[in-house]
Amino acid sequence: MSHTDLQKTEFTVIGIVESGFKEKFGVPRQPRLTHIRSKIRMLPPFNTPDAFEGLEQFSHIWLSFVFHQTQNTHWRPKVRPPRLGGNRKMGVFATRSTVRPNPLGLSAVRLIAIETLDSGVTLVVEGADLMDNTPIIDIKPYLPFSDQIPDATGGFAENAPEAKLKVVFSSTAQDYLLSLGKQEITDTIIEVLSLDPRPAYHSDPERQYGIHLFDFNVQWRCAENVAIVEKISPVNHEI
Amino acid sequence: MSHTDLQKTEFTVIGIVESGFKEKFGVPRQPRLTHIRSKIRMLPPFNTPDAFEGLEQFSHIWLSFVFHQTQNTHWRPKVRPPRLGGNRKMGVFATRSTVRPNPLGLSAVRLIAIETLDSGVTLVVEGADLMDNTPIIDIKPYLPFSDQIPDATGGFAENAPEAKLKVVFSSTAQDYLLSLGKQEITDTIIEVLSLDPRPAYHSDPERQYGIHLFDFNVQWRCAENVAIVEKISPVNHEI
Repeated sequence: MSHTDLQKTEFTVIGIVESGFKEKFGVPRQPRLTHIRSKIRMLPPFNTPDAFEGLEQFSHIWLSFVFHQTQNTHWRPKVRPPRLGGNRKMGVFATRSTVRPNPLGLSAVRLIAIETLDSGVTLVVEGADLMDNTPIIDIKPYLPFSDQIPDATGGFAENAPEAKLKVVFSSTAQDYLLSLGKQEITDTIIEVLSLDPRPAYHSDPERQYGIHLFDFNVQWRCAENVAIVEKISPVNHEI
Repeated sequence: MSHTDLQKTEFTVIGIVESGFKEKFGVPRQPRLTHIRSKIRMLPPFNTPDAFEGLEQFSHIWLSFVFHQTQNTHWRPKVRPPRLGGNRKMGVFATRSTVRPNPLGLSAVRLIAIETLDSGVTLVVEGADLMDNTPIIDIKPYLPFSDQIPDATGGFAENAPEAKLKVVFSSTAQDYLLSLGKQEITDTIIEVLSLDPRPAYHSDPERQYGIHLFDFNVQWRCAENVAIVEKISPVNHEI
């Protein structure tokens, strides 16, 4: 069988993620590492309340989605997982790398609410590691009896990555957050930066980073194990 | 947005399941309800051993696959899950029904072996609820820290379906199994029938069922809580 003979299957996007993660940098590297809330706006004809009846009985759901930011990146058999320090290679199928033969993502997240409005159905979820505008292709209930495997072992990814960094704010940043009066923004910044989103090979304390969260650009740097948020500013939207 | 505007994403089949389940009837309704082994034959260019390096450290893997037998069946917002007796309806997204907006399946199975041969890579797995020839589109490690959610609740599907039927063999069937000398066939028949694969609304003790497992047709009926295997015969393959 030549490569061009490979069978293809077409999937339809059924919903779109609305999330504060506006770019790849800063997105948690696994689901449920944060308490950040996002929404899944279902698209017609998949936004009928009937299709969700009974889902409210489940505390968690599986999201199958498209890695839309990396879907045109050609896969390679080996990748460098961040949790191995970015310098050891592993087979792509032994990782959950976004660059893989099919750009298919899988995350279990907490289901907070199923909102039914005139415009259809929107799911509110907690802990999603999904960028804004991520296309959703399936939603399934998390089945405890089937999905919890008590004797499963996880090799090089046995334990959860820990929150590594203490997060502090400059007085400028703190004043700005206070003027916003949105605790969610502060909480999100703390959760995202404490997970240390820097690439593994960075350790320059003078280096400045910028993360686009919600409508804000967060500028920070990292000295020892402290993330210092220096400035927060609104991102200018083009009209 | 009209239906024809919906965005599509194309996925490539990366492997094919080789399983004793030759037809839908009899396939376990969730993964890991049996100890039955199947294989996943990876297709080129996805069958390079490099792509699997490190996967042997994981006891279980996620398979994302295409429900190829029902992929052309039109989805409906409500379905009748077998575990609700087949007479109560639920929203399709609250179930793992094979008939859903996208024919995407998800199963966690035990990884037994990664076989590397001249012809590429074949995975041996245990407990798959997958039909023969099922197209695989992704393989990911099962990550205990991320995929085990101890506080998850499962509504109407909280507990695993139990083995319901005692399985007995007629002397004809038993003699035939002895002549084959393959314990795997006997074990498979017992595991499959004990899960009671009948549709929920069947209860006629005279009714005959046939299941195609491996290269055999298994004829049986069910009286009270006993599955009686009456005859096992080879399926004739056309040349």
